[in-house]
Amino acid sequence: MNGEEWLDVFKKIGKEIHRELPEGLNIASRQIPLGRGAAGDKTYPIDKWAENIIISVLENIHRKGEAFTVISEEIGTRTFGESKVIILVDPIDGSNNAKSGFPGFSTSLALLNGNTLSDTVVAYVINLTTGDTFWALRGSGAYKNGIQIRTTPSADATIVAFEASRPKRDISPILPLLNSAKRVRCLGSTALDLAYLAADAVSVFVTGMSSRTFDYAAGMLIVQEAGGIVTDITGNTLDHVMVGLDRTVPILATANRNLHASVVKILKNQ
Amino acid sequence: MNGEEWLDVFKKIGKEIHRELPEGLNIASRQIPLGRGAAGDKTYPIDKWAENIIISVLENIHRKGEAFTVISEEIGTRTFGESKVIILVDPIDGSNNAKSGFPGFSTSLALLNGNTLSDTVVAYVINLTTGDTFWALRGSGAYKNGIQIRTTPSADATIVAFEASRPKRDISPILPLLNSAKRVRCLGSTALDLAYLAADAVSVFVTGMSSRTFDYAAGMLIVQEAGGIVTDITGNTLDHVMVGLDRTVPILATANRNLHASVVKILKNQ
Repeated sequence: MNGEEWLDVFKKIGKEIHRELPEGLNIASRQIPLGRGAAGDKTYPIDKWAENIIISVLENIHRKGEAFTVISEEIGTRTFGESKVIILVDPIDGSNNAKSGFPGFSTSLALLNGNTLSDTVVAYVINLTTGDTFWALRGSGAYKNGIQIRTTPSADATIVAFEASRPKRDISPILPLLNSAKRVRCLGSTALDLAYLAADAVSVFVTGMSSRTFDYAAGMLIVQEAGGIVTDITGNTLDHVMVGLDRTVPILATANRNLHASVVKILKNQ
Repeated sequence: MNGEEWLDVFKKIGKEIHRELPEGLNIASRQIPLGRGAAGDKTYPIDKWAENIIISVLENIHRKGEAFTVISEEIGTRTFGESKVIILVDPIDGSNNAKSGFPGFSTSLALLNGNTLSDTVVAYVINLTTGDTFWALRGSGAYKNGIQIRTTPSADATIVAFEASRPKRDISPILPLLNSAKRVRCLGSTALDLAYLAADAVSVFVTGMSSRTFDYAAGMLIVQEAGGIVTDITGNTLDHVMVGLDRTVPILATANRNLHASVVKILKNQ
């Protein structure tokens, strides 16, 4: 299958999860953890429910002859035949929001032709609370709800989005950047932060904590295809980061190269 | 008209704004400020567009014989006949999000039988990005999408939502509270922060800056009717705060009395 065909599969998966969600799981039934997923976070019923939908679609595609390896937050690594193709899955990015009802959680899907982030060729993120969909094919631009999106060329840090999985540890290293912003936002879903940066709704996104590749691989390609820059928090490339279930590095995404340089400077002076 | 009849009017207004929004104004046309509203913030086309819908519905009701005074972010105070009834309107709470496309902006409507916050009797907030609606009638509980909502009895600050209109000034006074949280969120709409607290999606909401009554009067009643507590940031009652266009005080909302006491303590030790 080519990139466009895979993108169609990802869109179909996203639509199904979004459509089934209201009946699939009410808030009360989302609360009880089922244990821990392969990536170490607590698994909630909604994570497992969404992953089951995704795996079921991918199993069908494998039966038709496609080979690939899936790396997903809950089941970990699962091989569907011999292939260098990797599908990175975050069934629910923003599980805490999904289980409490806070409006900001998503499904994130990325297809790679190899095992480093520079190999990402198809990216798809759906905001499960609004239905907004974002996607990119490497070399073909980034799209929100079918309309091409581009980041701003402005070098001002207007709205800065951040994530902090442990506020006490994670806010302090990024506080100089937050203090320099016109506004700050913290939505609770890295995939969405990146997607909305690509759509020019925020100009900077930073994580205080180390992120996992399945959280940000799709969003990263969408940002890059929209004209933005994604590096680690010190400004180093992520191209050679190996994908997998482990936490990698804190990441920094900005709308353009000039803005990136000035934000890295602010963060280094900390 | 009684409270329930007013609530029906508010629901009708909210539905109309939510339904018309996609065609009403695309992102590009939301960007250019029209000047400043009566409350001092920049007015964007979307603020004026939503206010026009609201005023038009209220004018119709006045023509049928109802008297009231409207206090709204953009037009300021407008009298529709002699009455002590006040309608507090924030046409778009979260204008920055609405114009950039970040998912978190709302319409907030409150009806008061007098000119202090303790006079609020009807409250309505709609999340214009998800369609979630929240409402309360004083003494009759709080509702999200028609289902009664209650805050948690737990005294733990799990998810802490905050707003900071100038991060450099507003984050530092609330940093000890953010650092004590399990997770933080910053959505960019005070009315929504309060509404989602009432629905138990967050347990604490704090503003670093002084808020305006039209931003929080509706959300405040919804939180109170769901079992939560809303005071100023030092723990003092807001009951006698006069409604109007001015900034009042930084506010603090929590899920219950025990949690409120412990959060006030954390903020005072700052």
